[in-house]
Amino acid sequence: MDVFVPFDADEPKTRLSPLFDAAERRALAETMLADVLAVLEDAGWSPTVLATTDLDCDVPVVVDDRPLSEAIDAALEDALPAAVVMADLPLATPDALDRLAAPAADVVMAPGLGGGTNALVVRHPDFRTDFHGVSARDHRRRAAAADLDLATVDSFRLALDVDEPSDLAEILLHGEGKTADWLREAGVEVVAPDGRVSVCRPADSDG
Amino acid sequence: MDVFVPFDADEPKTRLSPLFDAAERRALAETMLADVLAVLEDAGWSPTVLATTDLDCDVPVVVDDRPLSEAIDAALEDALPAAVVMADLPLATPDALDRLAAPAADVVMAPGLGGGTNALVVRHPDFRTDFHGVSARDHRRRAAAADLDLATVDSFRLALDVDEPSDLAEILLHGEGKTADWLREAGVEVVAPDGRVSVCRPADSDG
Repeated sequence: MDVFVPFDADEPKTRLSPLFDAAERRALAETMLADVLAVLEDAGWSPTVLATTDLDCDVPVVVDDRPLSEAIDAALEDALPAAVVMADLPLATPDALDRLAAPAADVVMAPGLGGGTNALVVRHPDFRTDFHGVSARDHRRRAAAADLDLATVDSFRLALDVDEPSDLAEILLHGEGKTADWLREAGVEVVAPDGRVSVCRPADSDG
Repeated sequence: MDVFVPFDADEPKTRLSPLFDAAERRALAETMLADVLAVLEDAGWSPTVLATTDLDCDVPVVVDDRPLSEAIDAALEDALPAAVVMADLPLATPDALDRLAAPAADVVMAPGLGGGTNALVVRHPDFRTDFHGVSARDHRRRAAAADLDLATVDSFRLALDVDEPSDLAEILLHGEGKTADWLREAGVEVVAPDGRVSVCRPADSDG
C-alpha cells in the first residue's frame, strides 16, 4: 500500500526544547523518520515522505508547503487506497501496521495519545482529513457525516507519538530502533519519581 | 481464565484531587472497577477482586492488606494459569483481553503508560510480580532471569490507566462504558489547548 509520511523539517519538536537544542531536535526528528520508514518498508508498504521543504532521503519525497491536512488530502486523492503514518512513531512495528491495514473499513484510524490521529488508512474518496485540533474525534465525525464506516486499531505502539519529554521514556523502555539508540547516546535516561516515568539528561550529556 | 483485579479502596486516585474530592474519587474508582469487571465477564474470564479492605461487589472478593505484589503472588500461586488486570482500565475491551490471552508465552504483559504494567497473564509458577517502580522493565528482567519467555501485547486500551487528569480526556474521547458517563455527569469536559488534550471541570459542576 502507498503510504504518505508527513515531515515538518522547519522547526520540529519545540516541546523538547528543555532537553535539546534546535540542531539536536532536527537530528532526533530525522532519526524517528528513519525508524518509521524502515518499519514501513519491513511491512511491505511503499512510503513517500510529504515534506514542507526538500529533504535528503532514501525514499521519494514530495514537497508541499500547504497546511498539513490540505497537503495530505491532495496526496491521497490519486493514490487510494493509501495510508498516512506520522513520522514521530518510533515504537511502530510491522505487526502494528498489519493490524492497521487489516480492517476492510472505508477509513481505519490509529488514535494518538491526547486526541490526535497517528495513522490512517483511507479507502474511500469522500473522506477528507482534519489533523488540526482533536483529530481523532474530528475524523470520526467526518466519517459519520459522509456515511463512511471507520474502524479503529488498538495499538499502544501507534498511539505513542513524540511530543513531550515523558514520551521519550516510552521509547527508552519499549523501543528497539535507532531512536532509542540516539537517545541513549545523547545521555537521556529514564527517571522514575513517584508515579509515571519521565526522562532527564544530566548536564554533562548536553551538546 | 481466572483473573485477579487489585483494588485499593483506601485512598484511591489522589492525583485527581484537583478535580474531585475524596468521595468522588472513591465513586470514580468504583465505577472504573465496574467497567473492568463487566468487560472481563463479557470476555468470558472469571474475575476475583483482590481488595485492601472489604468491598460490596457482585464478584468474589479476597481481602489482603499486604503490599500489592505480595498479595498478587499469593493469589496467583494456586490459580495458574491466571491473569492480573488493573481496576483502572476503563478503555479495556473484550478484544484487547483476547489479544492478551492469545500468546502461549510463560508470561504476557500489557505495559501501561509511564513504565507500569496494567495486565499480566502468568502461566509459569517461577514468575514473581513486582509492581513497584518501573514494573514493565522489571517484569521483563524477572522473566529473563528465571529463563521464562515473556510476550507483550500492543494495546492502547490496556495501556491507558487513570492516574492524572489528562488520562480522563482519553476516557471521554474513546470510552464507551460507565466511566465516560460518570465523567460527563460530573461535568468533566475535554479541553484542547495547543497540543494534547486534557480536561477541565467548570466550577458549577463541583460536588
